[in-house]
Amino acid sequence: MRVLVTGAAGFVGRALVQRLLHDDAALGKPVTALVALDRQLDAAAWHSDARVRAMEGDFGDGDTLARALAEPPQIVFHLASVPGSLAEREPALGLQANLLAPIALLQRLEDEELAPRVVFASSVAVYGALPVEGAIDESQVLRPKLSYGTHKRMVELLLADASRRGVLDGISLRLPGIVARPPQASGHGSAFMSDLIRRAMDGEPYTCPVSPGARAWWMSLPCCIDNLLHAARMQADAAGPERVIQLPVITATVAEVAATIEALRGHPADLQWRPDESIEALFGRMPELHTSLARKLGYTDDGTLQALVQRAVATPPGR
Amino acid sequence: MRVLVTGAAGFVGRALVQRLLHDDAALGKPVTALVALDRQLDAAAWHSDARVRAMEGDFGDGDTLARALAEPPQIVFHLASVPGSLAEREPALGLQANLLAPIALLQRLEDEELAPRVVFASSVAVYGALPVEGAIDESQVLRPKLSYGTHKRMVELLLADASRRGVLDGISLRLPGIVARPPQASGHGSAFMSDLIRRAMDGEPYTCPVSPGARAWWMSLPCCIDNLLHAARMQADAAGPERVIQLPVITATVAEVAATIEALRGHPADLQWRPDESIEALFGRMPELHTSLARKLGYTDDGTLQALVQRAVATPPGR
Repeated sequence: MRVLVTGAAGFVGRALVQRLLHDDAALGKPVTALVALDRQLDAAAWHSDARVRAMEGDFGDGDTLARALAEPPQIVFHLASVPGSLAEREPALGLQANLLAPIALLQRLEDEELAPRVVFASSVAVYGALPVEGAIDESQVLRPKLSYGTHKRMVELLLADASRRGVLDGISLRLPGIVARPPQASGHGSAFMSDLIRRAMDGEPYTCPVSPGARAWWMSLPCCIDNLLHAARMQADAAGPERVIQLPVITATVAEVAATIEALRGHPADLQWRPDESIEALFGRMPELHTSLARKLGYTDDGTLQALVQRAVATPPGR
Repeated sequence: MRVLVTGAAGFVGRALVQRLLHDDAALGKPVTALVALDRQLDAAAWHSDARVRAMEGDFGDGDTLARALAEPPQIVFHLASVPGSLAEREPALGLQANLLAPIALLQRLEDEELAPRVVFASSVAVYGALPVEGAIDESQVLRPKLSYGTHKRMVELLLADASRRGVLDGISLRLPGIVARPPQASGHGSAFMSDLIRRAMDGEPYTCPVSPGARAWWMSLPCCIDNLLHAARMQADAAGPERVIQLPVITATVAEVAATIEALRGHPADLQWRPDESIEALFGRMPELHTSLARKLGYTDDGTLQALVQRAVATPPGR
C-alpha cells in the first residue's frame, strides 16, 4: 500500500507512522511506500526506513502537493491542522492550514482519479455548544463555536460530497482531545488533560486550569491510532452518506481521572485547582456521548480509566 | 450607503440592483455607490446611473476583487453562484464559484476591517434528504445531497464564524427556488417551477417534469427582494450565532399552483405530465416548513398562491 500522512511530525502523526511501519497488520496489506509530510520534520523522529519519503512543506502549496503525490497514494491520513487556540489567535494561519490547504489536497486527490481512501482527523469541536446535562448521540446538531471546529465541519462536508461523487472514498473521524501530549505548548486548549495525566503519573505537582468536577471526553494515543487504522480498513459507506464517525470516548471528570492515577500509584496526587472559565466552558462540560454507530462498526474507546491512563503514558513503539 | 452586489446580472441580482437604485427606502439610507459585479454583464440591463460601477470579472480572482473593493462597501449582497445541476455536471466550476470564490471574498472583506453587513444568498439545498411527510422547522438536521448545497452550507459556516469574530456582520438567507425565472436554460433543476407559471399564465402548453402531486417550496422574485433588503437592514445577531435565516415559503403542489392560474385566467391550463424521478426527488417532495424565527424577525412569504403567481410574472420595475 502507498500511504500519505499529513501532519506526520505531530503527536498523532508520529505514532501513526511508527505503527504503519512496524505493524504489518495495520492496514491489512504491507506498506510499500509512505510519504510523511509536515511543515517541519524533526529528523530524529524518522527512521532510515527505505519505504519512507519524509517531506517538509505546506501541503496547501501546489508544488509541495505535486511532489507528495508523485506516486499517488492509495490511503491518505489527513491529520495536519493548526490547533484551536492557536487558530483563534492567528485566524489567517488557521484558515490556510485548516480549510484552504485541505481543500487543495482533496481537489488534487480528486484529479488523480484513483479515488483513494481518505481518513480525515476531524474533531469534537464541530459540536460547539452542547447541553451540559444528559446525553447526546451521533445525530447531535452542530454549532461550532471556534474557527477550528468550523473549518473541521466544512472539510467533513467537502469530503462527504467528494465521496458521493465517487472521486474519493472518505471518512471523517471526530476525535476528542488525545492524551497524553508532550508538554510543549501546542496551542491546544485541551492541553490540561495531557498535562494532568503526565504530571500526576510522574508524581509532580500540577495546577489544573479546570475544576475537579470538569467533565471531559478522553482517549489515549494508542486507542486513537487503532481507530485511525480501523477507518483505513473499513467499508467506508457503512458510515452512511455523511461519511462521519463520532469515535467512542470515555466521559469522566478530572477528579475521576486523578483518583484513578492515585489508585494506580498508591498515593495522593499533588494537585491544585485554578479554574479558567473559558477552558472549562470549552472542554469541561461535556455530556455523556452515545456512539452506537461507531461501536457497531468496530470503533472502540479505552475501556476503563485505568487502561486510558496507562496507555496515555506508555512509550510509543519505535521511540 | 456603498453597496456591492455579486451576481448582479443574474435573475435575482438584476432585480435587486433595480430596487436599490429606484427605492430610497430599500436600505433605510440612500445608495451613494453601487458596484455591480458579474462574470458577464448584459450592457442593456444597466441604466446610466452615475452611482453604478458595473464590473465584469470573476470575484474569486484577486485583481477583480481588489478593484470591486476599491471603495470598501458597507453592505454586500453575495448572490453569485453556479446553479446546482450545472455544478453537478462541472464540479471544478462549482467548486470555484460556490466555494473558493466566496472564501476569497469573505477573506478580503475581513482584511478591509470595516465589518460590513454581508447578506449571503444560501439555499434550501443545504437540507438534502428531508422527511416526505409531516413538517420540519429551522432546526432541521442538514445533510446536503449535492455539491451546490454542500458549498452553500460551508459558506454559511464560514460567515457565522467571521461574524462571531466580529470581522464581518453576516446573515445567510436560505432561499427556495425563486419564480418566475426567464426561460433560458439556467442549470437550475427547479426551472420547472418557473416554466410552469410562465407558460400557463401565457396560455401556452407545458409538459411538466414532475407529477401534479409534487409538493414544492415557492417564493416570487419581489418577495425574495423584500427579504434580501430586510436582511440588509435587520439586527443580524437576532438570527443567533448561526446567522442563518430560513425564509418563510409557501408549500404547495404543482397542481395547486396550476389551479390557481386557471382560476386567475378563467380557463384550463394546457398541461401534460412527464415526471422525472430525479427532479421530483430533489424538488417535489418537500414537507411543510415552519419558520417561526424568520416570521418573528419580519421575513415574509407571498401570503397567498394568487399573490405568488401574480408577482412571479409581474415585470420588475426599471425593465
